[in-house]
Amino acid sequence: MSESIATLLAPAPSLVRSEHDLIGDRDIPVDAYWGVHTLRAVENFPITGQLLSSNTHLVVALAMVKQAAARANRELGLLDAPRASAISAACQEIIGGRLHDQFIVDVIQGGAGTSSNMNANEVIANRALELMGHAKGEYQFLHPNDHVNLSQSTNDVYPTAVRVATIFAATSLVGTMEHLGRAFAAKAVEFRTVVKMGRTQLQDAVPMTLGQEFNSYAVTLGEDRARLAESSLLIHEINLGATAIGTGLNAPVGYASLACSHLAHISGLPLVTAFDLIEATSDVGAFVHLSGVLKRVAVKLSKICNDLRLLSSGPRAGLGEINLPAVQSGSSIMPGKVNPVIPEVVNQVAYEVIGNDVTVTMAAESGQLQLNAFEPIIAHSLTKSMRHLQAACITLADKCVIGITAHEDKLRRQVEDSIGLVTALTLQLGYAASTQIAMEALTTGRGVAELVLEHGLLSSEQLNELLRPERLANLSE
Amino acid sequence: MSESIATLLAPAPSLVRSEHDLIGDRDIPVDAYWGVHTLRAVENFPITGQLLSSNTHLVVALAMVKQAAARANRELGLLDAPRASAISAACQEIIGGRLHDQFIVDVIQGGAGTSSNMNANEVIANRALELMGHAKGEYQFLHPNDHVNLSQSTNDVYPTAVRVATIFAATSLVGTMEHLGRAFAAKAVEFRTVVKMGRTQLQDAVPMTLGQEFNSYAVTLGEDRARLAESSLLIHEINLGATAIGTGLNAPVGYASLACSHLAHISGLPLVTAFDLIEATSDVGAFVHLSGVLKRVAVKLSKICNDLRLLSSGPRAGLGEINLPAVQSGSSIMPGKVNPVIPEVVNQVAYEVIGNDVTVTMAAESGQLQLNAFEPIIAHSLTKSMRHLQAACITLADKCVIGITAHEDKLRRQVEDSIGLVTALTLQLGYAASTQIAMEALTTGRGVAELVLEHGLLSSEQLNELLRPERLANLSE
Amino acid sequence: MSESIATLLAPAPSLVRSEHDLIGDRDIPVDAYWGVHTLRAVENFPITGQLLSSNTHLVVALAMVKQAAARANRELGLLDAPRASAISAACQEIIGGRLHDQFIVDVIQGGAGTSSNMNANEVIANRALELMGHAKGEYQFLHPNDHVNLSQSTNDVYPTAVRVATIFAATSLVGTMEHLGRAFAAKAVEFRTVVKMGRTQLQDAVPMTLGQEFNSYAVTLGEDRARLAESSLLIHEINLGATAIGTGLNAPVGYASLACSHLAHISGLPLVTAFDLIEATSDVGAFVHLSGVLKRVAVKLSKICNDLRLLSSGPRAGLGEINLPAVQSGSSIMPGKVNPVIPEVVNQVAYEVIGNDVTVTMAAESGQLQLNAFEPIIAHSLTKSMRHLQAACITLADKCVIGITAHEDKLRRQVEDSIGLVTALTLQLGYAASTQIAMEALTTGRGVAELVLEHGLLSSEQLNELLRPERLANLSE
Amino acid sequence: MSESIATLLAPAPSLVRSEHDLIGDRDIPVDAYWGVHTLRAVENFPITGQLLSSNTHLVVALAMVKQAAARANRELGLLDAPRASAISAACQEIIGGRLHDQFIVDVIQGGAGTSSNMNANEVIANRALELMGHAKGEYQFLHPNDHVNLSQSTNDVYPTAVRVATIFAATSLVGTMEHLGRAFAAKAVEFRTVVKMGRTQLQDAVPMTLGQEFNSYAVTLGEDRARLAESSLLIHEINLGATAIGTGLNAPVGYASLACSHLAHISGLPLVTAFDLIEATSDVGAFVHLSGVLKRVAVKLSKICNDLRLLSSGPRAGLGEINLPAVQSGSSIMPGKVNPVIPEVVNQVAYEVIGNDVTVTMAAESGQLQLNAFEPIIAHSLTKSMRHLQAACITLADKCVIGITAHEDKLRRQVEDSIGLVTALTLQLGYAASTQIAMEALTTGRGVAELVLEHGLLSSEQLNELLRPERLANLSE
Repeated sequence: MSESIATLLAPAPSLVRSEHDLIGDRDIPVDAYWGVHTLRAVENFPITGQLLSSNTHLVVALAMVKQAAARANRELGLLDAPRASAISAACQEIIGGRLHDQFIVDVIQGGAGTSSNMNANEVIANRALELMGHAKGEYQFLHPNDHVNLSQSTNDVYPTAVRVATIFAATSLVGTMEHLGRAFAAKAVEFRTVVKMGRTQLQDAVPMTLGQEFNSYAVTLGEDRARLAESSLLIHEINLGATAIGTGLNAPVGYASLACSHLAHISGLPLVTAFDLIEATSDVGAFVHLSGVLKRVAVKLSKICNDLRLLSSGPRAGLGEINLPAVQSGSSIMPGKVNPVIPEVVNQVAYEVIGNDVTVTMAAESGQLQLNAFEPIIAHSLTKSMRHLQAACITLADKCVIGITAHEDKLRRQVEDSIGLVTALTLQLGYAASTQIAMEALTTGRGVAELVLEHGLLSSEQLNELLRPERLANLSE
Repeated sequence: MSESIATLLAPAPSLVRSEHDLIGDRDIPVDAYWGVHTLRAVENFPITGQLLSSNTHLVVALAMVKQAAARANRELGLLDAPRASAISAACQEIIGGRLHDQFIVDVIQGGAGTSSNMNANEVIANRALELMGHAKGEYQFLHPNDHVNLSQSTNDVYPTAVRVATIFAATSLVGTMEHLGRAFAAKAVEFRTVVKMGRTQLQDAVPMTLGQEFNSYAVTLGEDRARLAESSLLIHEINLGATAIGTGLNAPVGYASLACSHLAHISGLPLVTAFDLIEATSDVGAFVHLSGVLKRVAVKLSKICNDLRLLSSGPRAGLGEINLPAVQSGSSIMPGKVNPVIPEVVNQVAYEVIGNDVTVTMAAESGQLQLNAFEPIIAHSLTKSMRHLQAACITLADKCVIGITAHEDKLRRQVEDSIGLVTALTLQLGYAASTQIAMEALTTGRGVAELVLEHGLLSSEQLNELLRPERLANLSE
Repeated sequence: MSESIATLLAPAPSLVRSEHDLIGDRDIPVDAYWGVHTLRAVENFPITGQLLSSNTHLVVALAMVKQAAARANRELGLLDAPRASAISAACQEIIGGRLHDQFIVDVIQGGAGTSSNMNANEVIANRALELMGHAKGEYQFLHPNDHVNLSQSTNDVYPTAVRVATIFAATSLVGTMEHLGRAFAAKAVEFRTVVKMGRTQLQDAVPMTLGQEFNSYAVTLGEDRARLAESSLLIHEINLGATAIGTGLNAPVGYASLACSHLAHISGLPLVTAFDLIEATSDVGAFVHLSGVLKRVAVKLSKICNDLRLLSSGPRAGLGEINLPAVQSGSSIMPGKVNPVIPEVVNQVAYEVIGNDVTVTMAAESGQLQLNAFEPIIAHSLTKSMRHLQAACITLADKCVIGITAHEDKLRRQVEDSIGLVTALTLQLGYAASTQIAMEALTTGRGVAELVLEHGLLSSEQLNELLRPERLANLSE
Repeated sequence: MSESIATLLAPAPSLVRSEHDLIGDRDIPVDAYWGVHTLRAVENFPITGQLLSSNTHLVVALAMVKQAAARANRELGLLDAPRASAISAACQEIIGGRLHDQFIVDVIQGGAGTSSNMNANEVIANRALELMGHAKGEYQFLHPNDHVNLSQSTNDVYPTAVRVATIFAATSLVGTMEHLGRAFAAKAVEFRTVVKMGRTQLQDAVPMTLGQEFNSYAVTLGEDRARLAESSLLIHEINLGATAIGTGLNAPVGYASLACSHLAHISGLPLVTAFDLIEATSDVGAFVHLSGVLKRVAVKLSKICNDLRLLSSGPRAGLGEINLPAVQSGSSIMPGKVNPVIPEVVNQVAYEVIGNDVTVTMAAESGQLQLNAFEPIIAHSLTKSMRHLQAACITLADKCVIGITAHEDKLRRQVEDSIGLVTALTLQLGYAASTQIAMEALTTGRGVAELVLEHGLLSSEQLNELLRPERLANLSE
C-alpha cells in the first residue's frame, strides 16, 4: 500500500464522515469521493499497489457505462431528471479525465470486479451529490447502489466496461502496428536491390534481396493487424442489461437495448447487445481469443527481433549483414560495444505477453456456473499486453528500424561465394550431379561456378545467365 | 523404434537394394517403397515411436500435393506424360488409403519436414516405377527428387500439405462440436421449465432455469465453432510454388497458380496462393492462430465439464442438481460410487490442448530468417489437439450429455428457500433495507418472504407476484 | 513515461550539466545523480512506466555489489583510499534507503541489465563525488566506469545483484507462507473433532474430519516452504568476478573470491562463487528452477482456495460446510450476498504466477552463447511473482483463514446420511453385496444402516461399531 | 480405437464369458484376462488410441504394488496362502514382461486412474485364477476387488504405481543425460586450446576457448542432472495404505508400513510412507516439481541446440565456427545442403516438454478436496517428457556432438581481427580512450592493435603481452 493511500485510510477524526455496509461503520476522509465499499476493497486486496486509476481506459469506460445506464433509466422513468443529470454530469467529468485519482482499488481484486464497480458508483454518487448541492456521503439524496447502479449489476457493468476499455486499447495498438509496418515497408523499398543469401535452418540457401526480407516483416505485421481488428470486433458484443446472471432481473423491459445504444453513442463504438445474455455473462471467450491474437503478434515481433539481432550480429565475427542504429553504450566493461538493445526489449515484452496469455487462459478456464469471477486478472493481463506491445512497436520503429543500414558489398560477395548457387543449376544438372558439385565446393573451399566450368558441365554464358543474382532473387528488372 | 521397423532396417543381404546419398551407400529392403533418405531419418529421429503413417490426413495431403505438382509440371512441359501419369497414379493410391505403412519417419523430426517430404518422394517414385514396369530403386527412370519433387521444395510442399491436412481435421472437429452442441440444445429444451438457483462466485444468486444453463453451453460451443471455421479459413492460403525460400527458384512462371488450382481441385478445398510467398514460407502465424482457437475451445469445454461435475456432485453431500449417466463403476474400494469420468476425461484433454498451445507458440517463435524449421512439432501438436478434442466431444455428447437428468423438486425447493430472492425486492425496498432482510434470513435461518411479511414491508400478493420463479428466471411463458 | 520523469529529461538550460557517451553530448539536470547512460536508457525503454526504484531489493542489492567490489578493489590496490571510501559511503546510503528515486530506468529493458548497472554506477559516482567535495559530473575525479565499475561487467554485477535481491524476496515469502501455514494449523486443531464426508472426484467418499482437511493444507504449504528454501539456496551461487563472459578478463587474480566474501558479509548471506564462471554467466537455470517452485506454490494455493470457495458455497444451495468471514459486500445488485473475495484474489495471483513462469521459461530458453540478454524480464517476473504471492498469503491468512467457522451439525448429519458408509462394511459384506446395498440406498433414498439391518446382514451392535464416525475418520481418541 | 481392440470388444457369442458390474452384464472374450470394468473403460475413453500397455514402466509398477499388497495382506492374515501365492505369481509374470498386451485402457482416462487399477486387478485375478486351476472369470474363487485390491483403493494404488514408474523413467533419463554430458566434456578437452571470440547479445565480446564453451554445456547438464535426481527423490514418498482418502479406512493397522516395505524390496527403491496420508492422497506437488525440473532440462537443451545451430551456421554466409556431422541430406531442392537436423529435433522435444509442463500445472491446479482426479494426464505428460528427452539426449550425443569439428584457423583469425580486444586495454587506457579506439576501428575497418600503436598509447611489447589470446581466455598455460 502506498503511503498516501495509507494516510487516506486512517484520517484524523475531525476530517471524516461515517459510512455503513453490512459489516459495520467506517470513517471515510471527508475529501474522498470513494466510500466504505472502496475502503473495504483497498484493505482486502493489497496485492500489487497498482491502482485502478492506472488503467485510464477502464476508468473512462466505467464512467461511460454509468452514464449510458443513467440515460436509459431516465428515459424509462426509473430515475428523476435531477439525479439523472447529476450522475451524467459526474460521469462526463470522469470521461474528461477528472477524478481518476479516486479510483484506488487494486488492479488485481477478488469479487469479479465488484470493487471496481462499487468504486465507480461511490465516486460518481459523491460527485453527483456535490453537483446537486449536497455534501459527500448524503446518500439519502442519491445512492451509489439505488441510483448510480440502478438496473445494473457488477456482472454486466464490469464486463461491458472492460470490453469498451479493451477496444480502445486494441484500436490504439493496431495504429501503432501500422506505424511499425510502414517503417519496415520503407526499408523494403530502400533495400529492394540489395541482393543477399537467403537462409533456411540457419544454413545458406538461395539468393534473395534484403528488401524482400524486410517486406516480409511488413506483410506479416499487416496480417496480424487484420487478425487483431477482427478479434477486437468480437469484443463489441456486450451484456449490459443482463444484471446478475443474464436473466435481466431488476432491469426493466427495453433497458438492455436502450443502454447499449446510449453506450454506443457515448463511446463512439458500434456496440451490440449479445444474443444470449446468460451465455454472455459467464463467457470470456472473446478475451481468450484476443489474448491468443496478442500472443500471435508477440510471436511475430519476437521472431522479427530475433532476425534483426542475428542479421546485425558482429561487428566482425557475426553475420554482419545490417547495422542497427546505436542508441546507447552497450557495455560497462567493453568499450565501443553496441548491442541490439531495442530488439532485446521487444523480445522481452513478447515473452511477457505470451506468459499473460497463459494467465488469461487459466482465469478463463476457472469460470464457474453463471459467472467468471476472475475477470479482473483477465483485464489486467490484456491491458498490460496491449500497452507493452504498443510501447514496444513504437520504440522498435522509431529507435531501430528507421535507422537500419545494410552492408551491401558484403552481402553481394556472399551470394557470389555461396554454394547455394548450385540449386539454380539443378534443372540443368540434376539433383545427383549438383550434389557432387556442392560437396566438392564445400571440401575444397572453391566456388560453384568455377567447378561447373572446370567439369565442362555448362558454358560460361549459360552460367552467367543462370546465376544472375537478380534472376535468382526473382526480381523483375 | 518398434520391432518391425528395426527388422526392416537390418534386412538379410539377399533381400536388399543399394541406395546412395551424400553420406554414402545403404542397403534398403527390396520390398520397401521408401529409400535411403527415409532410412536416414528413421535412424536420426527415434523420438516418439509414432510414425508419420499415424497421421492419415497428412499422408493423404502429401500425396495430393505431389499429384497437383505432377499435373502442373506436365502441363508446363517439364515432365513427360508417362512419368506424370505414373506419379499421379501412385499418389492416387495413397490418397485412396494404400501404402500408408510406408510412411515410417517419426512424427517429431528435425529438418523442417524434409524427411516427411523425402519419404513421400521415395514412396511415390518407387510405386510409380513399378507402375511403369521398372523395379523399385531404378531411379534412372524416375527420380524421387528430379521428378516427383520437380518444381518443389520441402519448404513449400510440407507447409502446404500440413495446411491441407489441418483443414481436413478442423472440418471434422467442427462437425463433432456441432454434434455436441445439439446434445446440449436438446437438453436445454428438455429442462426449459426446470427452475433453479443461479450462482455467481459459487454463491447463491438469483433464479434461472436449468434449460437456460444448458442452452448457454450450446450457444458458447456454437460461437467456438464459428471461430474455428474462421481460423481454418486462414489456413487455406498456401505457399506452393515458393520453393526454397519463396522466390520460386526452379519453379517456372505460372507453376504456382497452376499447382494451387490442381490442388484445390484434388482436395476439394478453396485454396489460394499466398500474396507474398517469401512471408508465407517463413510464417506460421495461421497455425498459432488456430492453436489459440483450439485453446479457446478447450477452455470452454473444460469450464462446461467443471460445471457438470459440480452440478452432479453428491449424491447426498453435494449440489446434486443433475445426474450424469453411470458409465462404469467409480471406485475399486467404495461400492456403488459413480464418478463423473466422462467430464473428467474431457478436462484432461483440455489441459493437454492448452499445453500443446504453448508448444506451438514456442516452435513458432523460434522460426529464423526464411523458414520455420519446427513445423513438424507444430503439425504434430495441432493434430493431437484436434483429434483428442474430437474424441472428447463425441464421448461427452454420447456417453454423458444425452443421459443427463435433473432433480427437479430439489431445484425448485432451493429457489423457494433462497436468500437471493431478496434481490427481486430491491426495487421496492431499496438496497439498504434489502440487505438487512438478507442478513436476518442468514442468521436466523428463516425465509426471505416470511421476514418481509413480518416486517410489513410488502403484502403477500405483492410478494407472490414478485417472487414467481418464472418471472425471476425471465421465462416468457 | 511519468510526468516528473519527463520534466527531468527536458530541464531548463541553466540547470544542466553536459555529459558525453559514444553517441554524443546530452544535457543532464544538475540535480540528477544519474547521467547520460541512464538518460539514454530512459528514452530507449518507455515500456511499463514502472521504474527500477520500485524494486527496492534490487536497488539495495546493486549498491551492496558495488560496495563489495570497491572494497575488493581497494584491498587489491586497484582503487585508492579516498575513492574507495567515497564509493563505499555512497553505496551505504543507498543500502540505507536513500537516493532510490534516482533509479529511473524501466524495469523491462534491453541490454541484459546494462542500463540498471549504468544507472547504479552513475548514481554512486555522483554521490561519491559530492562526498569527496566535487560537483556531480566531474568524472575526472571519480568515473562511473573506471572506478565504480572497476573489475566488473554488467554481466557479473547484474546477475549477482538480481540473485541477492531474489534471496531477500524469497526469504520474505517463506516467512509469509509459514504465517499462512500456522493459520491453517490452528484451524486444524480447532476443527479436529468435526466429522464430515470426504470427497473424491466431487462425489461423496468416506468420512474424515474437517481438522484433517485443514491440516493437509498446513502440511502441503510446509512442503512448499521447504522446496522454496532449497531452491533459494541454489541462487546463492554468484558469478561476481566473471566480468564479461566468465573468463574474468580485467579482474585481477583473487578478486572474485574477495568480492564474494565482502558481498557475503555486507548482505549477511552465505554466498559462494560459482565453480565454472563461464557456465554461470550464461546460465539462468537457478531462476527457472525457482520459478518452477513458485508455480508449484501457486498451484497449491489455488487448489486450496478452490476448496475453500467450494466448501463455503451457499449459503443455502451450496455445500455450505464452512463459513468464510465477510470482508465486504458481495454484490452491487444482490443485497446480503457475501462472496469469497479473498480466495478469489489469491486464485488470480496464482494464475499470474503461472503465466510468469512461462515468461521466465521463454526468456531463459532464448539465452544465446555466452549470455542471457533477457535477465531483466526474468528478474521482473520473479519479483512480481514473489511479491504478489506474499501479499496473497498474508491477506488469505489474516482476512480469511483465521475467521473460518464450521457448520458442525450439518456436517455430521451428512456423514450419517451418506451412502459412502457402505465402504466401511465391505470387508464384512464383500464388494458385490456392498454395491447392491449402495445402489438400493441411492434409488430408494434410504439409509445404508437401515438397509443392512433390514437385510439381516449385520447386527446393530456390529453396525454401530463399524460406523462410528471417529473410527471411520481414523481418529485416535 | 485400433482394429484389434474393436474385434476384442465384439467377439463371437461362443467365445465369451459374461461379467457383471453395477450397470449390467457384458460379454467378455474368453481369452481376455481383462474383464467388464476394463471393457467399460475402453468404451468410455476412446481418446488417443495409445494404450496403457505402451507405458511399460507403469504396467510393471502396478504389478509391483499389487504384489506388495498381497504379501502384506498375507502377513496380516487377511489373505489365505493359495490366493496370496497366485496373486503374487501373476504379478511376477507381469513384472517379467508378460501379459502387457492385456492393459488396454487408454492412457488418457477419467476416473483418477480407477480404470488402470481395475485393468490391473482383472488381469491379475484372471491369471491367478488360471494358476490356481480355475477358469478366467470364476471370481468366486478369487475376486479382482475383494482379493487383488484388498486393503487398497485406486487412490493409493495408482499414485503409488505412477511414482514407482516415474522413478524408473527419471533414473533412466539421468543416465542418458550423463552420457550426453560426457560427450560435451570430451569435446571440451579436444577443443581446449581453440581460441575464439566469445559473444554476448550476439555481439563480439572478448576471447575465450571453444573448449570453455563446450565445457559449460557439460557443466550445465551436470547441474540439471543433480536437480533431476533431487526431484526424483521427492517422489519416493508414497501413500500406499491411505486407501480412499488417506484415512486408511479398510486397511488394517500396520498395513501401510508393511506394504511399503514390501514394495521397496520388490522395486529396489528406498520408498517411504508419506507422513500425512490425507495430504499425500490429494497432493501432486512432487509431480509439479518434477515437471518444473524437466522443463528446466528442456530449456537448457534447447539453449545448447540453439547455440550449436548458430555456431555451425553457414557454410559460407554464417558464423561457421564448428561443423556438425552430416547425418542426412538437408534439402529436397538444394543439393549438398546439410542441415542441423539433430539439434532441431531436440529443440522440438524441448518445446513439447515445456508445453507438457503447462498441462501438468493445469491438471495439478484442478485437484479438488481429497483427490486429484487428473493424475492420468499428469502421468502421461511426464512419461512423454521423460521418454522424449531421453531419446533426444541419446540422438544428440551419438548423432551430433561426438562428430563435431572446429574451424580452428577461422576462429583464431576472428580473435586477432576483433574490436573486442580493446577491452583488455581498458585498465591501461581507461574506458573513454578505449571507446575512441573502438569507434575508430569500427569506422575505418582497421585493427585495434595498429591503432593503439599509431596513437602511441602502448608499446608493441605491452600490446603483445596484453593481447595474448591465451591470457585473454584465462587459460593457465
